Amino acid sequence: MSQDPANPTALERLLRHGSDADVRRFLHLLQPPEIADLIEALRSDEDRSRAFRAIVGKEDQADVLRDMEDAEAADILEEMPVEEAADILEEMQSDDAADVIQEMEEGPKQEVLEEIEPEEREDLEKILEYPEDSAGGIMQTELVQVRDTQSTREAVEEIRRTRDEVGELHEIFVVDENDRLRGWVKERALILADDDTPIRDITVPVPVSVPVTMDQEEIASFARDYDMSSVPVVDESDRLVGRILVDDIVDVFEEEATEDIVRLAGSDPEEIYEPSVGSALRARSPWLVITFFGGILAAFIITAGEDLVKQAGALFAFIPVIMGMGGGGATQTATVTVRSLALGRIGPGDVARVVRKEVLVGFLLAAGAGILLWLVATLLDGDPRVALIAAFAMFGTVCLGTLFGVLTPLILNKVGADPAVATSPFVTTINDLLGSSLILLFCFLVLL
Amino acid sequence: MSQDPANPTALERLLRHGSDADVRRFLHLLQPPEIADLIEALRSDEDRSRAFRAIVGKEDQADVLRDMEDAEAADILEEMPVEEAADILEEMQSDDAADVIQEMEEGPKQEVLEEIEPEEREDLEKILEYPEDSAGGIMQTELVQVRDTQSTREAVEEIRRTRDEVGELHEIFVVDENDRLRGWVKERALILADDDTPIRDITVPVPVSVPVTMDQEEIASFARDYDMSSVPVVDESDRLVGRILVDDIVDVFEEEATEDIVRLAGSDPEEIYEPSVGSALRARSPWLVITFFGGILAAFIITAGEDLVKQAGALFAFIPVIMGMGGGGATQTATVTVRSLALGRIGPGDVARVVRKEVLVGFLLAAGAGILLWLVATLLDGDPRVALIAAFAMFGTVCLGTLFGVLTPLILNKVGADPAVATSPFVTTINDLLGSSLILLFCFLVLL
Repeated sequence: MSQDPANPTALERLLRHGSDADVRRFLHLLQPPEIADLIEALRSDEDRSRAFRAIVGKEDQADVLRDMEDAEAADILEEMPVEEAADILEEMQSDDAADVIQEMEEGPKQEVLEEIEPEEREDLEKILEYPEDSAGGIMQTELVQVRDTQSTREAVEEIRRTRDEVGELHEIFVVDENDRLRGWVKERALILADDDTPIRDITVPVPVSVPVTMDQEEIASFARDYDMSSVPVVDESDRLVGRILVDDIVDVFEEEATEDIVRLAGSDPEEIYEPSVGSALRARSPWLVITFFGGILAAFIITAGEDLVKQAGALFAFIPVIMGMGGGGATQTATVTVRSLALGRIGPGDVARVVRKEVLVGFLLAAGAGILLWLVATLLDGDPRVALIAAFAMFGTVCLGTLFGVLTPLILNKVGADPAVATSPFVTTINDLLGSSLILLFCFLVLL
Repeated sequence: MSQDPANPTALERLLRHGSDADVRRFLHLLQPPEIADLIEALRSDEDRSRAFRAIVGKEDQADVLRDMEDAEAADILEEMPVEEAADILEEMQSDDAADVIQEMEEGPKQEVLEEIEPEEREDLEKILEYPEDSAGGIMQTELVQVRDTQSTREAVEEIRRTRDEVGELHEIFVVDENDRLRGWVKERALILADDDTPIRDITVPVPVSVPVTMDQEEIASFARDYDMSSVPVVDESDRLVGRILVDDIVDVFEEEATEDIVRLAGSDPEEIYEPSVGSALRARSPWLVITFFGGILAAFIITAGEDLVKQAGALFAFIPVIMGMGGGGATQTATVTVRSLALGRIGPGDVARVVRKEVLVGFLLAAGAGILLWLVATLLDGDPRVALIAAFAMFGTVCLGTLFGVLTPLILNKVGADPAVATSPFVTTINDLLGSSLILLFCFLVLL
């Protein structure tokens, strides 16, 4: 690695004290992903626009936009003259351009679209029609396709003709007379073939093609299983309409993992991609409100037996540790289950096995926790009845916590919902309710 | 997608009631990733070995092993005659073979290594020496390299010579007379070049090369930023020693995300990759023990003020909701911080900004929670002093929870530790201790 971790303040200083030529010279030394990072780190919109316009050449500007967050790239384009913005978008691959356009305000979006060349505009509008998370929404329409009746020489000519428009090549797609996908030719096969070799002879089957409507998470898991560098996208008549490149697959993995991680804790990915006090409050409040009212309900349950609980010596002091252990165990189980589902490690045939395993694990951990608490409570309080209530409540809460921890994501998954949605706050809240009911129940059983 | 979701029990039935020829015919209809899934779903080791040996051809066997979990692939190889296992490993790419060998028992491992051809064995031993998570440990040594003084014709010859050994080609690496990396040639450039074009003329600079010692997480983030299909690995003298392909980068992203998700909840990725009651107990117990003793310590703190707390009406019933909200808020903050660090969205210059934002968010959420609890406690208990204590304790606990939630991963990251390690159990436990101390403190202040 030879890059210096570039210092954002250097660019800021240059913008403040240097000429446009200085900024241009500085940026010219860097690569697009570095420039994108530097511009994103700038604090004022004005600085961002000025720095962006100091990048030499539409092609480099397009690369920098691609490497920026879509929302921030859209902000920059909205600040520019419409024609200039359209020119830069034309330089981008269709999938990247569509991502940015999607983030623009409705007005500027239509204005810019009208300025784009008709052919490219048509491609873009097609992509924009599909849901953002579907094959159609993340594919690019730039690709090289040849007929199975053509020769290697003709394929090479087609590659030459499209070299400026198509980014990474990877594979040449082979279609029949109705544009139906017949297979692909690897670049290496083309390198090794004679000019007169028929394309048909070096065509190999495509391991997997996906329909335009398929969800990106499913596509990513195919691409991983089949180690594909690009995934062809076909319409309902099996006609080739685009391709998804592996670097976009990498982005999908990151997005999906981010979604799971953040949702599990009861927040939203928006917090990460557009960090602000507002997005944090919006993302977190709903789940905290649920936690709050769950907790208040638990408090109602306990105060219903207030006199009884207060009779039981130090029992009230053990309530938090019982809730904490139940919540902790539930979160562990739920998290492992959510991640195993996401990695495709729990198939329909595995559900019974997974639940059995978790129940056994939960039972053992609950037994351990119950015995430990019985020992501690005996030492701390001395009243054998208090120790008994505490130990049984701990055992029951951790057992139920584990059970809800594994069942919640499995059920959400079964009904087609995202198993990660706020699993952790949800199971913790359920657990608090069950835990407080159990404490009261054992108080009744032991003390009355 | 044309594949039928294959049914594991079909293979099992065939193994039980059919001949080896039936099994062979059935597997022949499937692709390696599908066969790998089916074999992994088999319950007995004997069935797995039998099914695996029914796969026709060493090449397909190698592909299936690559698509299986490394530990399960190693089990299958250990069951086979050493020569046969060595032959299959020779068919695999060096990085995949090294991953499997790493999982074998010491005895069979040495026996198999001795059977492998000297040249390939040397490559494997080199990879095995590097840490599993470093560039050297995940690279493959199969690649095409040419001298900058050669011609396109010679490069094509080299590609032809190595076509069986090198998997995906992507780029041809260009080195000088000392094997130092000078750049690479894209396959498309070779397709479009004349036979006599000097390699030097179509060589372009490599955006990033990485040293053998670099950690895989860092490599993955470069590969993402630069959209590279392969990343060259160089030694300390800048000599080319291997390359990392993008499909391995995808695996790195998945592994790292899994690690973060599972560790955040206080468990270990082992639970996902080798699910068993034993691995679950090993992974979860340590953090539950910490949660337990943190909770007991909190109980000690509260019982120290037992008489005081019991004076305060229903206050004891609000303790769980205060702890729950503090823990929930801390987990949200910690999770968002850990993920933002992993995605490279918090640079050294951003720490102050992130902490400021989280403190403000925490203050607002804490104020909201405090006011809500004040209202509820006033309605539920009626004693204004109890409502006051509960509200202030809630406010303080959520504020401190958020602060610890953001500081813990930032500090772990600063000292070079994994910011995800059990952040959630850790901050929750700290929070319980602080929460119970605050409750007691406010009891003293208000009641005495």
